[in-house]
Amino acid sequence: MTFEVRFLPEGKRASVAEGSTLMTAAMNADVDLANICGGKGYCGKCQVELIEGKLSDLTVMEQKRISPEKIAKGFRLACQAKVLGNVTVKVPDQSRVGRQRLVIMGKEPRVEIRSNVQKLFLEIPPPTLHDLVADDERLMQAIAAKTGKKPKLDYILSKIAPRILREGEFNVTATLLANETVVNIQKGDTTRSSYGVAVDIGTTKLAVFLVDLNDGSIIFADGIMNPQIRFGEDVISRINYASQGPRELEEVQETIVAGINELIQKGLDETGVLREDVNEMVVVGNTAMHHLFVGIDVKSLGLAPYAAGMGNANDFLARDLGIRINPSGNVHVLPNVAGFVGADAIADILASRLHEKEKMTLLMDVGTNTEVMLGNKEGIWSCSTASGPAFEGAHIRNGMRAATGAIEKVKITESGEVVCKTIEDEKARGICGSGIIDSVAEMLRSGIMDTSGRILIGVSDRVRDGPNGREFLLVPKEETSSGKEDIVVTQDDVREIQKAKAAMYAGYMTLLRKSGMRKDQLSEIIIAGAFGNYIDPASARIIGMIPEMPLEKISFTGNTAGSGARMCLKSLDARGEAKEVARKMKYVELAAEPIFVEEYINAMYLPNSSLEDFPETTSSIKAPKVVKKYVRR
Amino acid sequence: MTFEVRFLPEGKRASVAEGSTLMTAAMNADVDLANICGGKGYCGKCQVELIEGKLSDLTVMEQKRISPEKIAKGFRLACQAKVLGNVTVKVPDQSRVGRQRLVIMGKEPRVEIRSNVQKLFLEIPPPTLHDLVADDERLMQAIAAKTGKKPKLDYILSKIAPRILREGEFNVTATLLANETVVNIQKGDTTRSSYGVAVDIGTTKLAVFLVDLNDGSIIFADGIMNPQIRFGEDVISRINYASQGPRELEEVQETIVAGINELIQKGLDETGVLREDVNEMVVVGNTAMHHLFVGIDVKSLGLAPYAAGMGNANDFLARDLGIRINPSGNVHVLPNVAGFVGADAIADILASRLHEKEKMTLLMDVGTNTEVMLGNKEGIWSCSTASGPAFEGAHIRNGMRAATGAIEKVKITESGEVVCKTIEDEKARGICGSGIIDSVAEMLRSGIMDTSGRILIGVSDRVRDGPNGREFLLVPKEETSSGKEDIVVTQDDVREIQKAKAAMYAGYMTLLRKSGMRKDQLSEIIIAGAFGNYIDPASARIIGMIPEMPLEKISFTGNTAGSGARMCLKSLDARGEAKEVARKMKYVELAAEPIFVEEYINAMYLPNSSLEDFPETTSSIKAPKVVKKYVRR
Repeated sequence: MTFEVRFLPEGKRASVAEGSTLMTAAMNADVDLANICGGKGYCGKCQVELIEGKLSDLTVMEQKRISPEKIAKGFRLACQAKVLGNVTVKVPDQSRVGRQRLVIMGKEPRVEIRSNVQKLFLEIPPPTLHDLVADDERLMQAIAAKTGKKPKLDYILSKIAPRILREGEFNVTATLLANETVVNIQKGDTTRSSYGVAVDIGTTKLAVFLVDLNDGSIIFADGIMNPQIRFGEDVISRINYASQGPRELEEVQETIVAGINELIQKGLDETGVLREDVNEMVVVGNTAMHHLFVGIDVKSLGLAPYAAGMGNANDFLARDLGIRINPSGNVHVLPNVAGFVGADAIADILASRLHEKEKMTLLMDVGTNTEVMLGNKEGIWSCSTASGPAFEGAHIRNGMRAATGAIEKVKITESGEVVCKTIEDEKARGICGSGIIDSVAEMLRSGIMDTSGRILIGVSDRVRDGPNGREFLLVPKEETSSGKEDIVVTQDDVREIQKAKAAMYAGYMTLLRKSGMRKDQLSEIIIAGAFGNYIDPASARIIGMIPEMPLEKISFTGNTAGSGARMCLKSLDARGEAKEVARKMKYVELAAEPIFVEEYINAMYLPNSSLEDFPETTSSIKAPKVVKKYVRR
Repeated sequence: MTFEVRFLPEGKRASVAEGSTLMTAAMNADVDLANICGGKGYCGKCQVELIEGKLSDLTVMEQKRISPEKIAKGFRLACQAKVLGNVTVKVPDQSRVGRQRLVIMGKEPRVEIRSNVQKLFLEIPPPTLHDLVADDERLMQAIAAKTGKKPKLDYILSKIAPRILREGEFNVTATLLANETVVNIQKGDTTRSSYGVAVDIGTTKLAVFLVDLNDGSIIFADGIMNPQIRFGEDVISRINYASQGPRELEEVQETIVAGINELIQKGLDETGVLREDVNEMVVVGNTAMHHLFVGIDVKSLGLAPYAAGMGNANDFLARDLGIRINPSGNVHVLPNVAGFVGADAIADILASRLHEKEKMTLLMDVGTNTEVMLGNKEGIWSCSTASGPAFEGAHIRNGMRAATGAIEKVKITESGEVVCKTIEDEKARGICGSGIIDSVAEMLRSGIMDTSGRILIGVSDRVRDGPNGREFLLVPKEETSSGKEDIVVTQDDVREIQKAKAAMYAGYMTLLRKSGMRKDQLSEIIIAGAFGNYIDPASARIIGMIPEMPLEKISFTGNTAGSGARMCLKSLDARGEAKEVARKMKYVELAAEPIFVEEYINAMYLPNSSLEDFPETTSSIKAPKVVKKYVRR
């Protein structure tokens, strides 16, 4: 029996089997709902309000986590409440991941759990005067009896094994990695406590997930700004800083390691998990972030031909890296494809299943650098383009990060009225990435600018020539939170967006032309990334950031780099897949590609100088068409 | 054509092929001659004086290392001068290893060099914009092309590889271990510089050897007292100290590691070898020394059933242990058999080839603890007995370590005169191990004591009852170096020697009886150990420290623990042999053996209460036979 669940206020719907949780329904319906503890009811963050319909009885967890007042109003935990009929619930803002606006969650396909960590409870006969087999061999024989393997003890364990064996009266739990190393021995049976950490190091943000390796659930997830930002906002600045010498490189490495350790500590504190029960970590990031985490000399990443120092997947001892899980634990880094297509792109592919698609699919992980991947199960082409930080609100006159008061949606009505929605509906403080994209799209649609991006005088009375050039008024100062300054979109802001989106589209076009694939083969667009969730696909399409496709073929998957990291944490098979994907992936270095320059110049137009590729957009915008197509001679 | 070489003053002879070095002849003749640099001519320590015969011309090395005055007198370096006719040379005391009296050298069979370390010079095509394979994979492909292997980079190398590759313009030398890890990358071709360290950790002394892994030569050898002595002279004291807690264990470990590092540093300084060219170390020691070096909790070694924490051979990262060779280098420890038969015993077996003997052989490594091994290629039985420090001059009234002025040889003439030889023929300062053994044997032979070890009044006018009991005068005070105190052998000293030798002999007898072998099958006795070189085999036989055997069947092999360590440093095959020996060895825990007690009591007699087992000794001694045989009921 299946029932329909409707989520307010967005009105999204999902059909689920009787007894499914509201969380399952929310995931199916693609509703933004916090799921910090992975459905265990610990975090209490997924509260929803029952409007109508039948749900299962309140669980003990719900009684603990929801205040009596809210229980009286019909609030429930989505991960606990089961659907027993057609149901309508309302998702309050507080329960949305979006609230914190550091998108750290992303779509994640289910994987079968086959982690690198195996815990074995062993009942070992103790030595006697007539059975003097040494402790290490005694332990190995017990492990061999259960697994057929005779692993090696990590150095730290070698030292303490005799003591722990005796403290546990030879009834101990051995933690074994797939490479046949014993990384922990604990008194008694601790097999139920086995955890791992997935880490996504973005240039801008750092996300850490604590995962139960017995059932795959996320028991803690949190993100902070990448603390390396003090060495420069963009990748190149940090490469330059770290290239000054070994001391500077170490400093940059220690900074990210400290950030990761801080989040791990927070996770341990919040969940009560013991450090020694965390034996595995998987890390993804772009190539520069990957190298700076491992501590690899990055000088060559900053100089042509931009070769990566490390391409292969690798495993390190946690203690070598200074990562504060079990010091004997393992840190796995996913493979990098090239200097600017890294482990995070591989993770995106794993999570989006690009390598299994029948039809040609475009996958973009949008960030300060945007990784562009084009292909299907037959093969994947990739490149990286410097899209810049404009989508994060940087280099934009009134730009700001996606936080309370940021204008995130903009509409210009037929009558020329401007409607802005801010985050948490507070008074406007500035414009975030999705707001600036909307603004440009709307100005284009309503003819306030021409297709070269020039803001026109006379179409809207909100256009004016200010001290910093021509600008479009979004919110007059009296309506802003400061009350002191108008919020505007300047001509320079438009140029920034043009450059950013041109880089992305030109990346796609370069791959298309290099690979010999045809435009009409493209059947799907997947946009991943920290803020991809909030971009209006229609606006992205209008400005020509992506090729023109029906909206239902465009999906936003959030931080799938983190998803891929979690998949590889839970599954050695996924790691094998990652290696295979990296090995087969084709990389195009745009610095060496005249095609890219040509496409970039054409993509500076809005949507593009190749209007024939954007028929629907072209017919829907009022912007004067002033295009000049550039063809390389 | 072969010639005879005669060594003065001992008159030992060897026949060697024309063109052999004097060093080769000295080794064949078993002449004590310093060979610190392994025959390279660097150390200049093997100077000998040509008395007559024909040698090759002076080499450049000889002209550098020997003073013009000495050259004029006919001095030569034994490792450089080649035999071109029958030759007589004189070995001055200064050229004898014995001078320093910390025996660190031992007999060492030749092994074919197949070390754990392989250096490969690689000429790698650098990356270009059209060949962007990452550095790690590029390096691996170059290694695979030469070896068929695709190794893994050690963490430290991962970090610096991109820089070194570029500094070397992609012409580099990779250092590869057999476990397929790259532990170093160096600019240019450094394949000729590959070194390893062999370490023998004795309870009392520490010996370190620096070995050229390209040709197997020893380029540096030195020994110091084991600095752990401050935690107790004997093994049990140190176990007790280290068992107090992790801090104390760490302290004991750090102390031995510091001692080893000190000797390594000395070796690097003296030879000019670079630390980064030392990539391998092999360590042997008894089980307690082994564990305290690795840092293994030793509490269980001090409590019945005395189980070893680590039995298997193992490999550690140098940096994990704090060993200052290349931090990515490997430290190999040989297997232990049991709590008190350790890696040093395995090394002794390898060096003495006990496991290849056709006939039954007794091998004893004499030290504060004496490891006793009995067997042949069919199988080896082993045990360990606490022989105590008496042979090192401790717990002996006028005892001292073997150093200048120590009485090392004692004879009592027919007329009752006592002839003492001291080390370096200085005035007597005390008695060292070989001197006290000689003293007891001579007192027994001349009837100054009875077979129970009681010193008798009336046989010699040198026997008297002093303030500390009965004693035998060796050197009157006026002939000593201090001039203040007579040097005597006391009744208590004799008891100490009785206990020490009884433990050794009882160990042998216990193995004999447990194994079911017969006394008459014994065909050879090998005595290894730090001071075994200096014991007079006839004296050892008279006091019943070893079974009665023709003197030519008794050999002293010196510090073969160090030899076995060097063999395993040079040869992975020897490591395989060590594992096999350890796996097949049978161990008898004497604490659980009533047979041992019985044999110990009988062996307290001199030579033994079973006089029938010592027919020759019995007939050669004048000591009154007062034996009472103990048989367990």
